[in-house]
Amino acid sequence: MEIAQIILMLAIVFILSKTLSRVVAKFGVPGLIGEIILGVVLANLVIGDFNIAEALNLRDGDEGHDVLEVFSELGVVFLLFMVGLETRVHDLTSVGKAAFLVAFMGVIVPFVVGFAYVTFLGDGEFYHSMFMGAAMVATSVGITARVIKDMGLMDVKESRIIIGAAVIDDILGMIVLAIVSGMAKTGEIDFVDVIKVTLIAVAFVLIVLFLAGKIVPAIHQKWKDYNAAKIEQDPNFLPYRFNMFIIAIAVCLVFAYLAEFAGLATIIGSFLGGMLFAEYAWDWKLEEKFENLSTFFVSFFFVYVGMNVELEIFFDKPSLFITAAVVIILACLTKYIGCALGAKIAEPHIEGSSLNIIGCGMMPRGEVGIIVALIGTKIMVDEGSAVSPEMYAIIVLMCIATTIIAPPILSILYRKKYKTDYVVSDQDKL
Amino acid sequence: MEIAQIILMLAIVFILSKTLSRVVAKFGVPGLIGEIILGVVLANLVIGDFNIAEALNLRDGDEGHDVLEVFSELGVVFLLFMVGLETRVHDLTSVGKAAFLVAFMGVIVPFVVGFAYVTFLGDGEFYHSMFMGAAMVATSVGITARVIKDMGLMDVKESRIIIGAAVIDDILGMIVLAIVSGMAKTGEIDFVDVIKVTLIAVAFVLIVLFLAGKIVPAIHQKWKDYNAAKIEQDPNFLPYRFNMFIIAIAVCLVFAYLAEFAGLATIIGSFLGGMLFAEYAWDWKLEEKFENLSTFFVSFFFVYVGMNVELEIFFDKPSLFITAAVVIILACLTKYIGCALGAKIAEPHIEGSSLNIIGCGMMPRGEVGIIVALIGTKIMVDEGSAVSPEMYAIIVLMCIATTIIAPPILSILYRKKYKTDYVVSDQDKL
Repeated sequence: MEIAQIILMLAIVFILSKTLSRVVAKFGVPGLIGEIILGVVLANLVIGDFNIAEALNLRDGDEGHDVLEVFSELGVVFLLFMVGLETRVHDLTSVGKAAFLVAFMGVIVPFVVGFAYVTFLGDGEFYHSMFMGAAMVATSVGITARVIKDMGLMDVKESRIIIGAAVIDDILGMIVLAIVSGMAKTGEIDFVDVIKVTLIAVAFVLIVLFLAGKIVPAIHQKWKDYNAAKIEQDPNFLPYRFNMFIIAIAVCLVFAYLAEFAGLATIIGSFLGGMLFAEYAWDWKLEEKFENLSTFFVSFFFVYVGMNVELEIFFDKPSLFITAAVVIILACLTKYIGCALGAKIAEPHIEGSSLNIIGCGMMPRGEVGIIVALIGTKIMVDEGSAVSPEMYAIIVLMCIATTIIAPPILSILYRKKYKTDYVVSDQDKL
Repeated sequence: MEIAQIILMLAIVFILSKTLSRVVAKFGVPGLIGEIILGVVLANLVIGDFNIAEALNLRDGDEGHDVLEVFSELGVVFLLFMVGLETRVHDLTSVGKAAFLVAFMGVIVPFVVGFAYVTFLGDGEFYHSMFMGAAMVATSVGITARVIKDMGLMDVKESRIIIGAAVIDDILGMIVLAIVSGMAKTGEIDFVDVIKVTLIAVAFVLIVLFLAGKIVPAIHQKWKDYNAAKIEQDPNFLPYRFNMFIIAIAVCLVFAYLAEFAGLATIIGSFLGGMLFAEYAWDWKLEEKFENLSTFFVSFFFVYVGMNVELEIFFDKPSLFITAAVVIILACLTKYIGCALGAKIAEPHIEGSSLNIIGCGMMPRGEVGIIVALIGTKIMVDEGSAVSPEMYAIIVLMCIATTIIAPPILSILYRKKYKTDYVVSDQDKL
């Protein structure tokens, strides 16, 4: 292995991804879209005899490709850990009924419609339908939260419902993913298996919620009391200090492995691992520190996501564009209808303008839908992978489209209702 | 490639290395020693049929081993970048004559003696002598600076000379390394080649010093002036803001590659790249951010260093212990004599107690000597690698020994002279 070549490849991918991220952010488009586009270009660009993937040692099976895969996996594991860090058990319970119903209906409607549409297309593969359903379920807390934060409207009712629902949706989506991939992995649509995977996923989530909500605070309090008592006895007593950043990295990696080991996905583990620290993430500066770590890693994930899109597929079969367009429209409509319906059931007297905001706020699939698709491509079933290259390309397009479409609409709706201005975030800088 | 297995391996190595680092720090030993020991254990421990390296997928040629090698390389590249961040051109010029003479004599004496001893041992390989000389030259700024900082004596005369000299020593050491490895790579002891490599190394260093000392401050000032002028015209003007952390990572990786490309070592490039930002590292919080990044990466480097030590060699040939003991004694004596001599030449009336402090302060080879040896093991010459497994093991032992021996002696000497207490640093926490 030529280490210097690997460093050069990492440097080029890193610099280009950050530059493109900045460029698209200039136009109000989330930076990750620029990184995905870079990946598509890197994997598909051939100019005469010059194959850029070959030059960078990035074709499937190359050492550079393997290294990028490890970096991309760590990137998404750290990313989901950070989402977990922002997800407090308390926030979930306080927004209550409305958030839960919005999330629940926002899972059911897209799943059923996504499943039905792919089944209707009739390529005969059951898992394709399942994974399309699962990908449609996703909501990207990150994208929506960013838009709301940039508008300075974190505290209005709609925002609280959206954020709460997006988080619950994440957890429900993870459970759906666990079930779907569990079924694909065992290769059987065995009712007992479905129940087993569901139980493991639910148990995993419940245990972590219990740990995060009760056990961690109890240990934290005990530790504080112990030190306070010691200091009272001896004013010179120096409490043992743990480096919480190191402990958090360790928990993130171990939980990622445990989840995979239990038949779930690594990201489910790291997300739940992050929730353990959510109550203290601010005190321990964990968000800031993980931000620095993921500044390096996360871009590799989105580039890798793009690299898995085979553009040839569309050239070979232009009708796929129509399928993709239908999927995008369905993704927007089902999320809108499901979530608005959930909000209406929870609060029958809610205004129409609020329903619009909630429906649009839940639309962006962002990285979450893509992660589902990527996991699907890696699971082999009888007739190829559980997510075919065609479906993968369509899902990525759907995620990109919903992620680009929703923020501007959402900010218009917010502005109409609350008369505030959209400020482009500082975080999107090079 | 089984990604979950890779994550598990990374998690185990990460957790064990941080734990051992903390354990040895409890006894006042620098944490990196614990990490090196872990590496030795991981690579050499076999209990009955249980081979720990095999279980962790870490044998030479395994995928886990390749991944660890990439992480270790990035770890050391980031580490040297951070040393560069702390190395201001200004500091180098201000301590002046004394620091330079201490550094210069501290390079010449160990190199000549190291070279002579291995030649005297007579294994007939010229490069072995060269690399032993180069490894003896190293001084670990990090270790010494840590001890001085912990004593709160950063501002006394001896400390300023030591830090200045250690930095100059680093640069001289890098030039020596560049020459030695350049000669080994071309496989010839060609006088023209030696001059070529020397010129490239010196040119590289001078160009970066010029960039860091003149060009970067000039650009920085221009940019500030430009924005100030714009704001004067239009009070609402928002200056374009660069994310300096991302730019620093990019420079670090690119300079690492460029140095390797120019026939030097990656770490020379990243060290010099770091110097470019030294003047502004504090303003831009670069040290803090790189600290978070390297918290994750650096441990893998020291573990990897340890993994390259083949303990069998010592069992097969116990006489090597004697060679190692002699090398350790020579390493301590030559550094002490060279540096004290340099100080005495620069300031003829200096006190004996100051000479003792300077001589001991320059002793620890730390990671720098090991890096030299590791680079040597990767360069192939006629009769194997430029640094044989035996020599590698001896150099690592020498670096560990000098790093463990020097700090306690140094703190005793300081305490005798300045009557202060040694405080164990907070940074060594888990």
